[in-house]
Amino acid sequence: MTESAPIDVLVSEVGPRDGLQSIKRAMPTAVKHRWIAALAAAGLREIEVGSFVSPKLLPQMADAGEVVREAIRIPNLTVLALVPNLKGAEGAIEAGAHKLTMPVSASRAHSLANIRKTPEEAIEEVRNVRALCDGLARAPGPTVEVGISTAFGCSMEGAVSEDWVIRMAAMLVEAGADSVGLSDSVGYANPVQVKRMFTRLRGEIGDKAGAAHLHNTRGQGLANVVAALEAGVTTFDASQGGIGGCPYAPGATGNIVTEDLVFLLESMGLRTGIDLEKLIAARGIIAEGLPGEQIYGSVPEAGLPKGFVYAAAKGTTP
Amino acid sequence: MTESAPIDVLVSEVGPRDGLQSIKRAMPTAVKHRWIAALAAAGLREIEVGSFVSPKLLPQMADAGEVVREAIRIPNLTVLALVPNLKGAEGAIEAGAHKLTMPVSASRAHSLANIRKTPEEAIEEVRNVRALCDGLARAPGPTVEVGISTAFGCSMEGAVSEDWVIRMAAMLVEAGADSVGLSDSVGYANPVQVKRMFTRLRGEIGDKAGAAHLHNTRGQGLANVVAALEAGVTTFDASQGGIGGCPYAPGATGNIVTEDLVFLLESMGLRTGIDLEKLIAARGIIAEGLPGEQIYGSVPEAGLPKGFVYAAAKGTTP
Repeated sequence: MTESAPIDVLVSEVGPRDGLQSIKRAMPTAVKHRWIAALAAAGLREIEVGSFVSPKLLPQMADAGEVVREAIRIPNLTVLALVPNLKGAEGAIEAGAHKLTMPVSASRAHSLANIRKTPEEAIEEVRNVRALCDGLARAPGPTVEVGISTAFGCSMEGAVSEDWVIRMAAMLVEAGADSVGLSDSVGYANPVQVKRMFTRLRGEIGDKAGAAHLHNTRGQGLANVVAALEAGVTTFDASQGGIGGCPYAPGATGNIVTEDLVFLLESMGLRTGIDLEKLIAARGIIAEGLPGEQIYGSVPEAGLPKGFVYAAAKGTTP
Repeated sequence: MTESAPIDVLVSEVGPRDGLQSIKRAMPTAVKHRWIAALAAAGLREIEVGSFVSPKLLPQMADAGEVVREAIRIPNLTVLALVPNLKGAEGAIEAGAHKLTMPVSASRAHSLANIRKTPEEAIEEVRNVRALCDGLARAPGPTVEVGISTAFGCSMEGAVSEDWVIRMAAMLVEAGADSVGLSDSVGYANPVQVKRMFTRLRGEIGDKAGAAHLHNTRGQGLANVVAALEAGVTTFDASQGGIGGCPYAPGATGNIVTEDLVFLLESMGLRTGIDLEKLIAARGIIAEGLPGEQIYGSVPEAGLPKGFVYAAAKGTTP
């Protein structure tokens, strides 16, 4: 499998950011470098490698600049950095991140707890970051993407208005976001809702509709992926070993597991460009960097089925 | 929620048979009685309670007659028993089982290993059991259902011919099966295949198309449920706590978890008639009867979402 082989679905790895951020201990910087390199070597084309937040808040992310600078040396890899505000964006841009991803929450309570801003203030911060990017000498500047968190419900507020989420998406595009995805930060989503919401999102903002960021908190992650695929979603966030969640949402552990997601997609005949054996081997690096940390995944446990064939080798798309 | 409330999807609990059969220790008969009663009280309408096989082969199932006799006293509960052959059927009928379920495997190697019969011989045994049921004085006699195991692949043979599986379904109906479902005994299925196969099954045998029996071996169980729903499947097997697998298929642990399945269906607006709190409470009985046994389930861990509403309470079906 060559790195430039065509793919049907983009798997965006968030483990080095979303995953490590939720773990108290810090993975050593050198191990982060090796992990990210191994993920890229397994065929991942997009990795969210760090968060440009105050090291006082998240000391695990204090080396974000260094990690970005190393990651952008890897060929054919899109390097994402999470930036909560203008200051973070400046750091990420200086380090050379290709894409900035900004957290904006649909739930007012969650937004205040997570980034101490109202949703409207968070949208304004996207506008500020957009202006910063547009003003850069380097061209093209980094792209700005937003995942609307708690888009399917919130552990603080319960149900979240779907109309409000879709209106926010339009406001975010107006503020300058290049893409807007939807995040089930707390594992509240169901397939009917996922299909409806991503269909509405595409109806509202067209090809600026972005990634599905789904959690497996209640075991529903891959079921929701199937629904999102039906709504035309072609980018999925996932975390190796299922590490990560949201530190401010109680009980919200568990991104969908990259290994299990890739297996799902490839089994369905959708090309990801990812080599599952190499991907599974990369799990060992987490264990080296964070000894004893619990990681998840059914495919790594059970192994590949006898006679498993990658989608690309089947020669047809579904 | 009353026991006669209409439902959209039938969840068929297989834990007391498929689950307990795969665990070496035997759950005491009195605990089985209490567990089955608790499951029925939680709203389950169909439970596979035991297997009528040689107690030398599966001593955990030696009390199947006693368990069936107690279970049929529970109002509004359909009591299933697994019978591999005519002798087993006689025992199950004598005990009063409402439904007999027979294992027939599409994979020749798995069939020989599991029941020491070729697939064709297993189909003939269905014909014998049908004749036995038809000859009974009691009317109506028990119904006969078959789940074609390894229908989506086999850990011994690898890929299994889909044409053969569908042809088997027709042969089974001809032999007298009242319903024929498809089983992913080893966790090989993917949603595209599940949708295609259940669509073909319905095309071939119409309303005799039966349950989807899906395993979560590779984490794909609920994703496959979503696909099966789209193909019109309305009965799903599941096991409380995800216990069970197939003792003859290596690495094949893990029925889909009843608790997580019910949550999925109810979240999607599909009425199951099951009370999730009562269902989750019933897990404690497994721990009593089999101390230290590992059980699974994400919804029991994470709890119900804030503001969760049952499908029936929403007042509309999707």
